[in-house]
Amino acid sequence: MTAVAGTRDGSDVPQEQSADGSTDQRRELAKANHVLVDQGILDGFGHVSVRSDEDPTTFLLARNLAPGLVQPQDVQVLTLDGDTDDPRKPYLERHIHAQIYRARPDVRAVVHSHSPAVIPFGVSSVPLRPILHMAGFLAPRVPVFEARDTMGAGSDLLVSSAESGVALAEALGDAAVVLMRGHGSTTVGGSLPEVVYRAIYTEVNARVQVEAERLGACTYLTDEEAAATVATNTPQIGRAWQYWQDRAV
Amino acid sequence: MTAVAGTRDGSDVPQEQSADGSTDQRRELAKANHVLVDQGILDGFGHVSVRSDEDPTTFLLARNLAPGLVQPQDVQVLTLDGDTDDPRKPYLERHIHAQIYRARPDVRAVVHSHSPAVIPFGVSSVPLRPILHMAGFLAPRVPVFEARDTMGAGSDLLVSSAESGVALAEALGDAAVVLMRGHGSTTVGGSLPEVVYRAIYTEVNARVQVEAERLGACTYLTDEEAAATVATNTPQIGRAWQYWQDRAV
Amino acid sequence: MTAVAGTRDGSDVPQEQSADGSTDQRRELAKANHVLVDQGILDGFGHVSVRSDEDPTTFLLARNLAPGLVQPQDVQVLTLDGDTDDPRKPYLERHIHAQIYRARPDVRAVVHSHSPAVIPFGVSSVPLRPILHMAGFLAPRVPVFEARDTMGAGSDLLVSSAESGVALAEALGDAAVVLMRGHGSTTVGGSLPEVVYRAIYTEVNARVQVEAERLGACTYLTDEEAAATVATNTPQIGRAWQYWQDRAV
Amino acid sequence: MTAVAGTRDGSDVPQEQSADGSTDQRRELAKANHVLVDQGILDGFGHVSVRSDEDPTTFLLARNLAPGLVQPQDVQVLTLDGDTDDPRKPYLERHIHAQIYRARPDVRAVVHSHSPAVIPFGVSSVPLRPILHMAGFLAPRVPVFEARDTMGAGSDLLVSSAESGVALAEALGDAAVVLMRGHGSTTVGGSLPEVVYRAIYTEVNARVQVEAERLGACTYLTDEEAAATVATNTPQIGRAWQYWQDRAV
Repeated sequence: MTAVAGTRDGSDVPQEQSADGSTDQRRELAKANHVLVDQGILDGFGHVSVRSDEDPTTFLLARNLAPGLVQPQDVQVLTLDGDTDDPRKPYLERHIHAQIYRARPDVRAVVHSHSPAVIPFGVSSVPLRPILHMAGFLAPRVPVFEARDTMGAGSDLLVSSAESGVALAEALGDAAVVLMRGHGSTTVGGSLPEVVYRAIYTEVNARVQVEAERLGACTYLTDEEAAATVATNTPQIGRAWQYWQDRAV
Repeated sequence: MTAVAGTRDGSDVPQEQSADGSTDQRRELAKANHVLVDQGILDGFGHVSVRSDEDPTTFLLARNLAPGLVQPQDVQVLTLDGDTDDPRKPYLERHIHAQIYRARPDVRAVVHSHSPAVIPFGVSSVPLRPILHMAGFLAPRVPVFEARDTMGAGSDLLVSSAESGVALAEALGDAAVVLMRGHGSTTVGGSLPEVVYRAIYTEVNARVQVEAERLGACTYLTDEEAAATVATNTPQIGRAWQYWQDRAV
Repeated sequence: MTAVAGTRDGSDVPQEQSADGSTDQRRELAKANHVLVDQGILDGFGHVSVRSDEDPTTFLLARNLAPGLVQPQDVQVLTLDGDTDDPRKPYLERHIHAQIYRARPDVRAVVHSHSPAVIPFGVSSVPLRPILHMAGFLAPRVPVFEARDTMGAGSDLLVSSAESGVALAEALGDAAVVLMRGHGSTTVGGSLPEVVYRAIYTEVNARVQVEAERLGACTYLTDEEAAATVATNTPQIGRAWQYWQDRAV
Repeated sequence: MTAVAGTRDGSDVPQEQSADGSTDQRRELAKANHVLVDQGILDGFGHVSVRSDEDPTTFLLARNLAPGLVQPQDVQVLTLDGDTDDPRKPYLERHIHAQIYRARPDVRAVVHSHSPAVIPFGVSSVPLRPILHMAGFLAPRVPVFEARDTMGAGSDLLVSSAESGVALAEALGDAAVVLMRGHGSTTVGGSLPEVVYRAIYTEVNARVQVEAERLGACTYLTDEEAAATVATNTPQIGRAWQYWQDRAV
């Protein structure tokens, strides 16, 4: 996976720097929360995290708070067991993040959302597939996590234990997105801008695909096209990230 | 039904308190009106009520006013017959609220809305069913109230009498939501935050289900899954309620 | 048709009065333009008019200007031939309004819009029918005006002459709404609040019906139900009108 | 193609003039960017250009920046080879614009977008066709550019070379819009207001058509009707352009 350094990738837009790297990450994480709300990916629920620059065996995630309200001081540091010294209540589903960071050293940011256009693809037999060049990261396939396989048919569907986090990370495998049946999806990336971009375009692709399926005779991206679009588009993500941040103020 | 006390459920967000409990309920009811408008559940019509903390044989409901304009001083106190001493014009359909509070002692808040994604499920043969874990409260079934059964095929569909209110409450039974054919729906809950949450996610579930039905081969929540999600999610409602209030200012 | 006097119908909301009745109508007409834009019924095109209180053989309509920009001083007075002494450029389709006022003495306000959910019903064989109780005015039927019947298959579809205005008014007959194939729709009412209400709920009904049609086995309002809802809902329109104006500031 | 001079077409709305024509074009181009974002046609990606009034063998296009952030000083001047003296990074797909200006002397403005309702028509076998009179410019046909035909099945789909720009311009031919499979669309016009109008109504037509197709038995505009609507509507575009600019401030 290619890491994207957001507005620090050489664009000519100056960025306010603070002396403390960790503080910068907290600010960027708060911003990512607001962007995802503004773009309709998160509502009162869902969360986004980033692996710590200082200690890659930890990650940063807001305390149990609606994403639209998250400020830098609401960010907690958690271990890859999902533990934290912070006395404030954490999210129930922090194990989604912890177990994916453990299983996937390449992953530096994770979004868990209930974005609405994606959910139908998690409950039906039609797979989500890349139909537009902005969503090539969906190739070669988008796996579906069925909670019943590990938790039985009477669970609350939530990934609220290390065990279910491991099962979700296994379902994700080396993909960029895993659908969660009757629940939502989880998206991973090499940076906050990249995972935000992917979460947004997973939703856009789902909206477009559901309409195209009904018109019939869809042409999807080939796996080669998908890989080529990812190579080209990844260095362009900073352009949208800059705009999304501007809008979400 | 588990009652949810909103932002007073132990979250670490301080809430402004007034000396007068009744005034607090009026302010929370005005807020619920604004949240439901901001979230697209109510428009120029529809209403939300809460059972009085002081006298559970009465309930609070705004006078005949568009929900987006309701202020605490617009709130009336009504009996379970739908009567009020307040000289200002009440809603025609106050009997929805009165008869449900009478039939269901566990209900402490009621929303009546025309939210658009729900209406198709009230007029067709496809039942509304829980398809995402945020809407487990729709299980085990969402009944449909057919006004023709009690009012004949020439009525105005409105529940504007005690008699039709009783019929609606009977159709609701012990469910959380009742669809009203050609009209809308009515949702009940153990608190204002809970009923607002349910009204919002009834609409979200309907939007998702209508798309999923067309993709085909839907997997719905089992009744056991639905019950488990309600048990888990109910204590989390305050998180969204806090955000929805913040947005609706 | 029952006339609705908007916020002057006895509601307890005070309304600013000016000494000049005509000026009041111009202000209400500018407001109706803004409400229809805010509610997504008009965009850069479309228009709304009102019959003059002072001289019912004339009507008020903005000069050729996008509805969102209309101010009271942009309003022109036109005759039932579509003529005006105002030197500023009028709308091409003022004949829609002129010929309907001429044919329908009961009509006191007219909206011509391209609101998007309605258009599919004008180009397909599925008739628009009342599916929710807020749109009972669509019964007993919504006629479709086919420009080809009078203008041939090579016209620009616009109703920009007295002749085509007469043909449209004939297609409308005594209905509340006429669809215009490949173009949009025209809605009439007994007052500005009523015609705005009808234009909005025609669009809402179309959005709901298109989804319900796909679920299958729709139940529509009977003509008796539709008539009963109109009788009940018409006196309630001022409630929404007050809110819509408040939002559109 | 009939050129539209925007708010300078004789409308009675005064326009601020600067002594320098070139500066005026840069300001109008920045405005067009903001309008297209406000109307949902561009998001963090896509671009709009205009042929230079001073030297028609050059055109103006923003540097590599999200459209919502473009200011007049971000505009670059490019040749019909897609070259520029401006040291700032240009868009990868400037060749879309360069090769269309080269092939089509009548074209004075170009929009490349990923607007979502259009994309399904580029990937399915159902052609986009004019279904409402505001979109007559879609007749007689909307070609589809299949990148595989010239770039093979492993490309990134982007038109980022002169060669692929030539292929796209050939696919466009003398049409107003060309769909790009799995990517988006490109729209041309005789002025910035006209190309913005066309990009917006291409999206509106797609939204309406996808619904109408499902209702069945669609009536489209005849080619004669389409041509007549273009002749009538083109001089009216300034009306919407004025409003869109006002909204996008």
